[in-house]
Amino acid sequence: MLKSYLREKRELIDKNIEIYLNKLEYPTVIAEGMKYSVLNGGKRLRPILLLMILELYGKSLELGLPTAVAIELIHSYSLVHDDLPALDNDEYRRGKLTTHKKFGEAEAILIGDALLTHSFSIVTDETKDVSSDKLVKIIGKISRYSGVNGMIGGQMIDIESEKKLVSFDTLKYIHTNKTGKLIKLPVEIGTIICESSQDEFKALSKYAELIGLAFQIKDDILDIEGDFEKIGKPVGSDVELEKTTYPSLFGMEESKKILKSTIDQAKEVLNIFDKEKIENFILLAEYIGYREN
Amino acid sequence: MLKSYLREKRELIDKNIEIYLNKLEYPTVIAEGMKYSVLNGGKRLRPILLLMILELYGKSLELGLPTAVAIELIHSYSLVHDDLPALDNDEYRRGKLTTHKKFGEAEAILIGDALLTHSFSIVTDETKDVSSDKLVKIIGKISRYSGVNGMIGGQMIDIESEKKLVSFDTLKYIHTNKTGKLIKLPVEIGTIICESSQDEFKALSKYAELIGLAFQIKDDILDIEGDFEKIGKPVGSDVELEKTTYPSLFGMEESKKILKSTIDQAKEVLNIFDKEKIENFILLAEYIGYREN
Repeated sequence: MLKSYLREKRELIDKNIEIYLNKLEYPTVIAEGMKYSVLNGGKRLRPILLLMILELYGKSLELGLPTAVAIELIHSYSLVHDDLPALDNDEYRRGKLTTHKKFGEAEAILIGDALLTHSFSIVTDETKDVSSDKLVKIIGKISRYSGVNGMIGGQMIDIESEKKLVSFDTLKYIHTNKTGKLIKLPVEIGTIICESSQDEFKALSKYAELIGLAFQIKDDILDIEGDFEKIGKPVGSDVELEKTTYPSLFGMEESKKILKSTIDQAKEVLNIFDKEKIENFILLAEYIGYREN
Repeated sequence: MLKSYLREKRELIDKNIEIYLNKLEYPTVIAEGMKYSVLNGGKRLRPILLLMILELYGKSLELGLPTAVAIELIHSYSLVHDDLPALDNDEYRRGKLTTHKKFGEAEAILIGDALLTHSFSIVTDETKDVSSDKLVKIIGKISRYSGVNGMIGGQMIDIESEKKLVSFDTLKYIHTNKTGKLIKLPVEIGTIICESSQDEFKALSKYAELIGLAFQIKDDILDIEGDFEKIGKPVGSDVELEKTTYPSLFGMEESKKILKSTIDQAKEVLNIFDKEKIENFILLAEYIGYREN
């Protein structure tokens, strides 16, 4: 049931990504590179979370679709730049050549820059029926959560932490910022659009934090126990880079216990909402923890 | 007189860049790298243009300072990424090591990303007394003019055009987008804040277009006739990269004629305003055309 829900939402997101990006034509390599980098069979977890909040409050999905796409563009740009030779130097992502392998390195840098830049004009130019006051708040949050005190900060400390054993505090900083902030972002933007109460905001933001953490722990586990065919990238790259991970700090058995407890917390924290309204949130938390890719 | 005016404004801009960027501390390499890349003795032409529009309409400079700084951050990020080994591979800028030479290549990619991202939160979080409706328009324009249909597009075609003779149309596309859009941007944002009439908007936007073109032609000329000590980078790099430029297409003498005529047009186009109010705009057009760096 969750699977068909996720597929339906993913298709809606993908359709809108295409609609927005198909408006771009020139320079061809940038326009094509942007589409290639975003339309890659991604799970669309971040944009789907925004749509789920809108549904929770019975709002039209149209209100959030441009912002949902914008967040996915930011996620995609971060992957394009992370994959570059100077950073992770990855040749494949989801079984496809990475953007710099396909289009060239200079091109990939500019394609990433273009995705990041364009995400803001999708929010301002494509959003209908959301007040300017809310849009300014949304844009501020996008910028803060994906910037130096958010995703980019996490990415920088992640790179600095390669080939050394780091403390649990540093690992938490990396997870909170590199992956966590961009999962919190769509949820908190949803609460801006829907004008959630303070209690609802706290519960939803905490839920996002917990599934973000679960997502990361599961990623660490998959890097050891995963299947190349399913995860679409080489297994064991964390070990090779001597990265500190949950399994390297706590061992595999304990990591799986922490994962389970994190998912359990995520399922509990939304109990201020009617049970039937949060069914998909519960299923999503489980899916994130027990996914195979 | 213009010189002391520009110095005063430059100091105001630099002070505000420091105030905003000093709020950032961690990760240290990103925070320091952002300051290093922006606080580099730049002319601050783009932010000053925004302040000049505010003065033209007798508005408080405070209204535009955050956006002026944001535009300078975007200009700076574009230079950080342009200088990377995969793009122009420059080691020096203004006589100082380029960002990747100083901080490393992965770091420079992320420092550039952080500057671009942070520019949007400076606009949303630091601006006072500008309506949300105007801010949304401003942010949309920033994104469009610096993105795939603006600065990044121009940069891409510029790279593609190295080592080949390109048409005058292609050269115009590069100039209009790579340099031109980011000079038009602060002027047009000024007209949003000041609620210019349609005629005033047209005149000011045309002025910006013409000084942007003059700036580029002068750059091409300086690359041949300039002085390393003054321009802070090696002379002749366009020739080395076999770039199409005004001098390569039209010869030096004709290029200087086109430069003069462009500046003359820029001075004329503002004649719908009171003469004493546009004095600095006239002087600035001349300065751009006859500068030595």
